[in-house]
Amino acid sequence: MDATVIMEDAIPFYRPSGNECVLFETAFRQGLPVMLKGPTGCGKTRFVSHMAARLGLSLNTVACHDDLTAADLTGRFLLKGGETQWVDGPLTHSVRQGGICYLDEVVEARKDVTVVLHPLTDDRRLLPLERTGELLEAPDNFMMVISYNPGYQNILKSLKPSTRQRFIGIDFDYPAAEQEVQIICKETGLDRMRCVPLVNLARSIRNLKDLDLEEGASTRLLVYCATLMMAGISPLEAAQATLIEPLSDEESAKEGLLEVVRATFE
Amino acid sequence: MDATVIMEDAIPFYRPSGNECVLFETAFRQGLPVMLKGPTGCGKTRFVSHMAARLGLSLNTVACHDDLTAADLTGRFLLKGGETQWVDGPLTHSVRQGGICYLDEVVEARKDVTVVLHPLTDDRRLLPLERTGELLEAPDNFMMVISYNPGYQNILKSLKPSTRQRFIGIDFDYPAAEQEVQIICKETGLDRMRCVPLVNLARSIRNLKDLDLEEGASTRLLVYCATLMMAGISPLEAAQATLIEPLSDEESAKEGLLEVVRATFE
Amino acid sequence: MDATVIMEDAIPFYRPSGNECVLFETAFRQGLPVMLKGPTGCGKTRFVSHMAARLGLSLNTVACHDDLTAADLTGRFLLKGGETQWVDGPLTHSVRQGGICYLDEVVEARKDVTVVLHPLTDDRRLLPLERTGELLEAPDNFMMVISYNPGYQNILKSLKPSTRQRFIGIDFDYPAAEQEVQIICKETGLDRMRCVPLVNLARSIRNLKDLDLEEGASTRLLVYCATLMMAGISPLEAAQATLIEPLSDEESAKEGLLEVVRATFE
Amino acid sequence: MDATVIMEDAIPFYRPSGNECVLFETAFRQGLPVMLKGPTGCGKTRFVSHMAARLGLSLNTVACHDDLTAADLTGRFLLKGGETQWVDGPLTHSVRQGGICYLDEVVEARKDVTVVLHPLTDDRRLLPLERTGELLEAPDNFMMVISYNPGYQNILKSLKPSTRQRFIGIDFDYPAAEQEVQIICKETGLDRMRCVPLVNLARSIRNLKDLDLEEGASTRLLVYCATLMMAGISPLEAAQATLIEPLSDEESAKEGLLEVVRATFE
Amino acid sequence: MDATVIMEDAIPFYRPSGNECVLFETAFRQGLPVMLKGPTGCGKTRFVSHMAARLGLSLNTVACHDDLTAADLTGRFLLKGGETQWVDGPLTHSVRQGGICYLDEVVEARKDVTVVLHPLTDDRRLLPLERTGELLEAPDNFMMVISYNPGYQNILKSLKPSTRQRFIGIDFDYPAAEQEVQIICKETGLDRMRCVPLVNLARSIRNLKDLDLEEGASTRLLVYCATLMMAGISPLEAAQATLIEPLSDEESAKEGLLEVVRATFE
Amino acid sequence: MDATVIMEDAIPFYRPSGNECVLFETAFRQGLPVMLKGPTGCGKTRFVSHMAARLGLSLNTVACHDDLTAADLTGRFLLKGGETQWVDGPLTHSVRQGGICYLDEVVEARKDVTVVLHPLTDDRRLLPLERTGELLEAPDNFMMVISYNPGYQNILKSLKPSTRQRFIGIDFDYPAAEQEVQIICKETGLDRMRCVPLVNLARSIRNLKDLDLEEGASTRLLVYCATLMMAGISPLEAAQATLIEPLSDEESAKEGLLEVVRATFE
Repeated sequence: MDATVIMEDAIPFYRPSGNECVLFETAFRQGLPVMLKGPTGCGKTRFVSHMAARLGLSLNTVACHDDLTAADLTGRFLLKGGETQWVDGPLTHSVRQGGICYLDEVVEARKDVTVVLHPLTDDRRLLPLERTGELLEAPDNFMMVISYNPGYQNILKSLKPSTRQRFIGIDFDYPAAEQEVQIICKETGLDRMRCVPLVNLARSIRNLKDLDLEEGASTRLLVYCATLMMAGISPLEAAQATLIEPLSDEESAKEGLLEVVRATFE
Repeated sequence: MDATVIMEDAIPFYRPSGNECVLFETAFRQGLPVMLKGPTGCGKTRFVSHMAARLGLSLNTVACHDDLTAADLTGRFLLKGGETQWVDGPLTHSVRQGGICYLDEVVEARKDVTVVLHPLTDDRRLLPLERTGELLEAPDNFMMVISYNPGYQNILKSLKPSTRQRFIGIDFDYPAAEQEVQIICKETGLDRMRCVPLVNLARSIRNLKDLDLEEGASTRLLVYCATLMMAGISPLEAAQATLIEPLSDEESAKEGLLEVVRATFE
Repeated sequence: MDATVIMEDAIPFYRPSGNECVLFETAFRQGLPVMLKGPTGCGKTRFVSHMAARLGLSLNTVACHDDLTAADLTGRFLLKGGETQWVDGPLTHSVRQGGICYLDEVVEARKDVTVVLHPLTDDRRLLPLERTGELLEAPDNFMMVISYNPGYQNILKSLKPSTRQRFIGIDFDYPAAEQEVQIICKETGLDRMRCVPLVNLARSIRNLKDLDLEEGASTRLLVYCATLMMAGISPLEAAQATLIEPLSDEESAKEGLLEVVRATFE
Repeated sequence: MDATVIMEDAIPFYRPSGNECVLFETAFRQGLPVMLKGPTGCGKTRFVSHMAARLGLSLNTVACHDDLTAADLTGRFLLKGGETQWVDGPLTHSVRQGGICYLDEVVEARKDVTVVLHPLTDDRRLLPLERTGELLEAPDNFMMVISYNPGYQNILKSLKPSTRQRFIGIDFDYPAAEQEVQIICKETGLDRMRCVPLVNLARSIRNLKDLDLEEGASTRLLVYCATLMMAGISPLEAAQATLIEPLSDEESAKEGLLEVVRATFE
Repeated sequence: MDATVIMEDAIPFYRPSGNECVLFETAFRQGLPVMLKGPTGCGKTRFVSHMAARLGLSLNTVACHDDLTAADLTGRFLLKGGETQWVDGPLTHSVRQGGICYLDEVVEARKDVTVVLHPLTDDRRLLPLERTGELLEAPDNFMMVISYNPGYQNILKSLKPSTRQRFIGIDFDYPAAEQEVQIICKETGLDRMRCVPLVNLARSIRNLKDLDLEEGASTRLLVYCATLMMAGISPLEAAQATLIEPLSDEESAKEGLLEVVRATFE
Repeated sequence: MDATVIMEDAIPFYRPSGNECVLFETAFRQGLPVMLKGPTGCGKTRFVSHMAARLGLSLNTVACHDDLTAADLTGRFLLKGGETQWVDGPLTHSVRQGGICYLDEVVEARKDVTVVLHPLTDDRRLLPLERTGELLEAPDNFMMVISYNPGYQNILKSLKPSTRQRFIGIDFDYPAAEQEVQIICKETGLDRMRCVPLVNLARSIRNLKDLDLEEGASTRLLVYCATLMMAGISPLEAAQATLIEPLSDEESAKEGLLEVVRATFE
């Protein structure tokens, strides 16, 4: 893990919690695609930025959604000077130039998107462009990375085995307590003494089973809370705006959260 | 709260009911996006106009709906002189120029809209334009604001945690009684003596549980009612047109409302 | 109500049944939008034509339907001479020119239509054209009017409170008996003696609960019936073609209606 | 009914079974739209052709279907010489030129189609073309006619009361026995002696309740059967091809029909 | 039936099993449209090719599917040299040139397809092209033929009575045993001794009720099996590849089929 | 089977497990289309590459998905120099040039795709291009191959009998143990001693019935695991990333898999 300790400024800060950096680098060296799994705001996107910088690779991120189609990734014909002209999409661009192509929340995309990844993620490493008739071979420094949140998956929105079984899987979770305290200190400048209760509060919220929250408080929300506190907002008001309102709309759940917040700060 | 009392004419009138102005300003100074939650017609849109004027920011409002797509926000190619030419959408325009981009009733928009906000609402503050290949960095004076009505949300139409957890949340409700009286006086010129029973009437309607109303009478409807009264319509007729017909189509509910109205004015 | 009695030929005939003319005119003078509710063929459209003429306003009517989108109202780009050129839709046209824009059966329209009305129906009275980047301010003589039939509404097709609460509501019903007799006399020239039993027949049909009719006979159908009678068709045949066939396809319901018709004319 | 007896060759043959010709002509003279209801192949389309010829009107028939939109009726912009040019649809064409516009099986069309008919079918008789901004007034010799089969109607596909109540309704059924014999004789040349059992057979089939047929044998199928018999096919084979196979795919229903056919011809 | 025995080489081989050739020819001579019903691979398509050749008619086959629209059949406007130019679809082409237009598996097509056939399949024999304003009259040698498999039909995918009752119906089934042996001998060259057990095997499979097969083995699959056997594949292997795998994916059903196959060849 | 043992370098490695090579070659020689059935990652795609190389045929692979339409396969008109120009899709290209056209996971494609294959997969071997009016005849060296995974099929996504019965079927499964060991050795260079437990592990996972896995570990995942091990990752970590995370998101299933993995490597 040494490599991750000595970090230059240009490399986005990331604190590893296991073997994820080694696994990712090995996958890259062996030409294998990687799939990241984990909850909202636990650091998957930051991890990819970090690894791209460490490996000296450009990074092309695509936030996937219900309407993202294969053509949005591969490219399309546009009218220029009365002629249709092909314009590469972000995936095609990555395959031509090398670097990491990162599809964030890939299960949200339309089904044709995952299928377009198939020839790129087996030993052929090819991207066929049906519309132009080209067959692109990915260079050695091209890497395919996808992520999703297993907590959201349902029958309609899930990866088929034929897609999943083309990726090395790395599982993410919220950082350990001490690690999370350090992240918040570093990101916001709030002193350690005030960060510790914040992290404890987040851990309590994540363990609340009764309130039926869709998901626990993310590290990102802790950073927001600490930012507001650094700007002079009282801890209670900051927590209400960042650890209660973003987590639920239910009156009863919000009261339950308020109790936990009060128990921490009053 | 002093700043909100001394208001110049150019700043739209808004009467704060809590710490919302301070929170909003802090969020703006720290580059954090904000999400406003609350019922119909309680003043969310007015609040944003007010804050935009106070902070000297331009305001770009987009009313979201079922068919609003990411392309409507970011822009699209149009044919000009036989060539396709990129035309910025309101979000891209805001990111280029700075100012507040306000998505009203964001849960109504299509899912790709919320995803396009993701890179803009984490620490990167970037807007990638996949179709042109540009990667815009939001200037310091850009602020993302969204709103929605938690009362409407259902399973199909709700914000995913991965979106919610990118925003500071501020909860709105109908104004307190005295505050609402002042708002109606100021907006319509109706004298205080006639405003007080109107506000009491609205508070009674909001507390009616038996009539199964979708939502209580908004401050806006009280302003409408007072406007009709100022123009010479009798209180009963004005209330029928503004506090009964807009609230329900059910005969029984309308009779129940009429009873409450009569108890106030007869 | 005097003004409605003295009517010039140019003003479409309308016989008020309550305070609707005063309310409508007051709403127009105060810049408030109006929503008309009531059953099929009871005179809502005629009322709007009448008021438009009385107030000296042009009238732009849009019949809403399942496929009506915001772009149909606001406008779209069309190809002209190799360039895309913006062409105003009826709503934009009305906002630019002033006058009444009347959306008939607004609940039938797609959801984006109602949202496009929001900034036009609060105190801002603005129409933002996202595609051209324009922000139109409605002139003082612009008025927004919508109508719908509450009897049709269901969960999928109804106005959201956030839309409803932007309008003054006026409730319509079939005219009173004497009033309806006068309308039919005036519209068709049929003598009063023959109009009275027709109106009584319609009132009986409207009160039939057992036949499970979707809606009662409208004033329009009575006018049709009287028109056929004036042209020499026997009352029974005329009633069959206008008060039975248009009301139901069910054999049993049609027999029930025929009984009522026979009881009147035989 | 005399007028229908003296018919020139140019007028398509139609044998009236009630007051339908008089009603239709009266509706035309009074400018009222007409709606024809009745089962498959009972002569509705032939009736309209007949009346159009009798009244000296051109006839524009549109067969409605699931994908028929208002734009298919009113017209659309097409690219010509680099410019978009408006091309009238059949409804607009009829309104400009006069004559009958006949929408066959109107309940099949998309909902925007019926709404586009509304201003044409009340006293305004207007066709607004939103896309071109034109407002066409129908000439006196324009007549709107629609038809549908009440037997098919379901909740998703039915005319709303606000549409139905704009039309005079005429109900059709299979012709009476003697009348149907004459129709088949005249259409096919088969002698009366052989037509009579055919019509009796059809009447038996129409009365079969047990076989769960979607609809009985139409007059058209009888004409087909007689045509095959005239061409030398045996009655049994002809009936199998025209009165059994077109009516059902169910083995048991087909056997039931075969029994009835055999009882007639063997 | 003599005509079908003397066949030139240019006429595709077809062995009639009843009066289908006479019926088809009579329908053609009388200008009546024909509908063929029957299971997969029983020879409907071959029959149409055979009759087209016999009657000296060109044949235009359209395989129908979920996305086939009326415009695919009638034609559409395409851009040529900056202008939109009408290009005939296969149905329009057939109507202009004459010959048979054959819509295979017509129930799969979208609903607007069947409606476009209506004016072509009653006594008018017209094809109105709404988009160009043309009204084509079918020449005497034009014939409309449709086919479908009644076994597939469900409520969503079936022909409406108003469509069915416009066609003469001919019912097809698998050929009789001796006839099927002759077909396989002729098509593949496999000697009669080896064809007989194949046909017996197919007949056993078609009678299997327990295995819940969607459909029995078609004549086409027997021809495939015989072809593999002629090329040296063992009967068991050939039957597995042609009479088991194509019929089911269920392990238990495949074992049941294997038993029957083994009983035949071992 | 000898031919498959002597393989040149240019021919992709494939180890046959039955008569699949002979059957495939016979089908090719006889002009019959082939359908491959089997689970994810068992070697279907590799088999097709292998056979294409052995038979000296070019290979055109199309990964099918929910949005793949017939037009994506056959071709479409594109604007070039102001004119629409036809551009062949991969299927049309294959039919013109000869070679194998391979539709991977064909059940995923839209229904019009399978229908476009019908005239290509009976004795006519024709590809009609409705949009251009061409009728292409497939050359002798054209071969149609499709594949799907029977484990995924459901009612909405399955091949209709009329499609299935046009193909010779070949069933695939995971390789036998010894064969799979050899594949992994050859593909990754990992020594046989370390490959054997990996294959045993995979076979145990495939037999786990309790964990409710969608599909067992594929040969591809074993190759991934061996690759990571060759690169120095510990067997436990490699197995976690390749044989646990890609197979499930369920905590309990992952623990069950971890137990099996631990039993193998600890």
